[in-house]
Amino acid sequence: MNTRSYVDQHQERFIKELIELLKIPSISADPAYKEDVLRTSEAVEKALKDAGCDQVEICETPGYPIVYGEKIVDPTLPTVLVYGHYDVQPPDPVELWDSPPFEPVIKSTEIHPDGAIFARGACDDKGQMYMHVKALEYMTANNQLPCNIKFMIEGEEEVGSESLEWFLTKNREKLANDVILISDTGMIAKETPSITTGLRGLSYVEVEVTGPNRDLHSGLYGGAVANPINILCDMIAQLHDENNHITIPGFYDKVDELSQEERAEMAKAPFSQEEYNKKLDIAQEHGEKGYTTNERNSIRPTLDVNGIWGGYTGEGAKTVIASKAYAKISMRLVPDQDWHEITKLFKEHFEQLAPPSVKVLVKPHHGGTAYVTPIDSLGYQAASKAYEDTFGKTPIPQRSGGSIPIVALFEKELQSKSILMGFGLDSDAIHSPNEHFGVWNYLKGIETIPHFYKHFTDLKK
Amino acid sequence: MNTRSYVDQHQERFIKELIELLKIPSISADPAYKEDVLRTSEAVEKALKDAGCDQVEICETPGYPIVYGEKIVDPTLPTVLVYGHYDVQPPDPVELWDSPPFEPVIKSTEIHPDGAIFARGACDDKGQMYMHVKALEYMTANNQLPCNIKFMIEGEEEVGSESLEWFLTKNREKLANDVILISDTGMIAKETPSITTGLRGLSYVEVEVTGPNRDLHSGLYGGAVANPINILCDMIAQLHDENNHITIPGFYDKVDELSQEERAEMAKAPFSQEEYNKKLDIAQEHGEKGYTTNERNSIRPTLDVNGIWGGYTGEGAKTVIASKAYAKISMRLVPDQDWHEITKLFKEHFEQLAPPSVKVLVKPHHGGTAYVTPIDSLGYQAASKAYEDTFGKTPIPQRSGGSIPIVALFEKELQSKSILMGFGLDSDAIHSPNEHFGVWNYLKGIETIPHFYKHFTDLKK
Repeated sequence: MNTRSYVDQHQERFIKELIELLKIPSISADPAYKEDVLRTSEAVEKALKDAGCDQVEICETPGYPIVYGEKIVDPTLPTVLVYGHYDVQPPDPVELWDSPPFEPVIKSTEIHPDGAIFARGACDDKGQMYMHVKALEYMTANNQLPCNIKFMIEGEEEVGSESLEWFLTKNREKLANDVILISDTGMIAKETPSITTGLRGLSYVEVEVTGPNRDLHSGLYGGAVANPINILCDMIAQLHDENNHITIPGFYDKVDELSQEERAEMAKAPFSQEEYNKKLDIAQEHGEKGYTTNERNSIRPTLDVNGIWGGYTGEGAKTVIASKAYAKISMRLVPDQDWHEITKLFKEHFEQLAPPSVKVLVKPHHGGTAYVTPIDSLGYQAASKAYEDTFGKTPIPQRSGGSIPIVALFEKELQSKSILMGFGLDSDAIHSPNEHFGVWNYLKGIETIPHFYKHFTDLKK
Repeated sequence: MNTRSYVDQHQERFIKELIELLKIPSISADPAYKEDVLRTSEAVEKALKDAGCDQVEICETPGYPIVYGEKIVDPTLPTVLVYGHYDVQPPDPVELWDSPPFEPVIKSTEIHPDGAIFARGACDDKGQMYMHVKALEYMTANNQLPCNIKFMIEGEEEVGSESLEWFLTKNREKLANDVILISDTGMIAKETPSITTGLRGLSYVEVEVTGPNRDLHSGLYGGAVANPINILCDMIAQLHDENNHITIPGFYDKVDELSQEERAEMAKAPFSQEEYNKKLDIAQEHGEKGYTTNERNSIRPTLDVNGIWGGYTGEGAKTVIASKAYAKISMRLVPDQDWHEITKLFKEHFEQLAPPSVKVLVKPHHGGTAYVTPIDSLGYQAASKAYEDTFGKTPIPQRSGGSIPIVALFEKELQSKSILMGFGLDSDAIHSPNEHFGVWNYLKGIETIPHFYKHFTDLKK
């Protein structure tokens, strides 16, 4: 039976199984959900066994476990390693969800008339990871697995994959492979398949500004002591200049500047600024002077405050000068910025911005280095042919603004290239309220993936 | 029996009764505490009856009720109206309290070796309000009330006294008086009694900056859309210039500039910048260029962010661009700034600071006009003599940085001057964690207040 028929026959079950997985709130960032994260690793273990892995194990790490599974057909044949993650982003702000984030529902949308599954993790990454599990089920059930397959599904991607490097260095032989296959990105549109060839790196920090040693009455002290919230705002404001360039000294030193030809090539991708603004309900875009929107969110580094808090934030009014103010700040990095170096530059600069009337603390959270993948590899060609089989179109290579820091790590530790076959859409609201994943996209992923194995094995011969 | 002996005899009960009142969390800013606020009004009603008022009533208003009580000795004698409030500030951040804010405890401190009562509202204003109730008890029990007395104790002071004007305009005759007596301020030190003669006004607003219509993934959108948190920080940073002057056009137009002589007089008050900084654990003070700390927090207007929030503020990291960012901002005003006008100027300026890539909303909360009281009135003289009786020292007239917006309102609606006899200390941490009120100060207040009635009645003859 071909993949299309198998998916048609089993689609209801495929959706049901994913929905069960989405019900578990595997929020790795919040220790309160520890049991749920662990429960999810067990659900993934079972799913891999059921799909046909010969050997599956929940591997302990210093953090959350990594689920490893394999089906070795013949050690002389090529090996594909599938990477994914079973943890999800926190659902905040919960009040903006139309339905509870961990009670999945299927609803039609303009882009997904066949329905989309609404739940935290639907697309990022439980849904996309599960496509690979179901693709294996098809291949084992129909005797269509042409090579060896390994799975490595982690539970800390949303908090910086802190245990992954530890795991890789301890299990190099077990994880040996010819190519790594990942579905944790998107595609340009339902009718426009694409393969992600570039990812931005990341440096994520938390800052704390301390003024007086206790909260003060703003009437009695206002105007006479540094207000840490005002100072924090000042310091954050100084991180960009009037052209929205980042002011950290040395920040752009290693940025790989694209040639005019490369930028002209990028500009050919279909894009309407008007529609983009309309969808986000903004009167005007905003970004670094001299670059287009598609350049700003892919080939240029950025700095964004992801969260800020301090003082009284409840109902009504409180006339207080807070003792402390906080912000979470992340920088998206491009080749060849090193995230350790950028974190250091940020720390030095930010500390130097503080006036003597406050104390400042910069705590690095995590990071990852940017990555650009070649498009002439066997893996890329196999993926390209797989999309041609099921979409009838050659996919477009695309540089994405997001970060999967582990791709650079895999290259360093396992000497393997990663192929990023994403089936999500930009509009799927990952990391936002009402995250969803189109039913069509989910099933199309399951249908397409087995073609990759066939072509990759053929090309390797 | 004189006041001193009566207080000595009954002090244990006075403390116990106040502690009971402090146990009720009458947080007017938070609707969740509505029942507690109402319960507190009933406790005040009972206390006034027990202390000797002939008539007490809980007067309904559009908001929280005002407790009114009176004891009319003889309509031809002068009348003193006591104002106070039974609501308290929210206790946040609760985790910084050494003991629960609504479980009062008495502990010794360096400044209060005889002990201080630690609880939200201990000083502001339940403790100071209750001194007047107990002073009445002394006067009625000992036949020492030389004039008429009225009480007006409200429950919305910490949220802008919104119903008070409504109440005043409807009850002018009932509230008719010769002087208004308030204890809702502080004194310079235990050995240095003072009467507050100036209060700053207030304009309190909440601002909301909206970028995209939903939270976005900072990897996919970062750098290409306005991040409302970054923009809000930018806008807040622009509210002060490099000399810490406020940049709102017209903001200083009506500010009453003190003469060099007046400033020289102020500078004579005992003050050590070094000690001030040490107590607050700051390396350097911070404020408007060209003014001293004591000027900055009393005769100069200020602008402080009292709270800020937006994006992800939980544990760990979330790479999100928030749709909205918020701040609560208050301005302390001086004579002759009009708070309605300043609120309008702020709104216009803040809206104009917003780039076209965001939307901005400014919501005025509440406000009040600054006030300076004359020191040659009969009320001031009576208060001065009362302090002389019990402290053996003439009190110092002092301009305070805080705001009691209702003082200007009383002058307008009731044509009465207010006398601010405060017994709290700057170190009492009102509006902060670990608010407290010295037992000595509390009892000294009860002892001193009856002297005011005697002198005021004598002076009016």
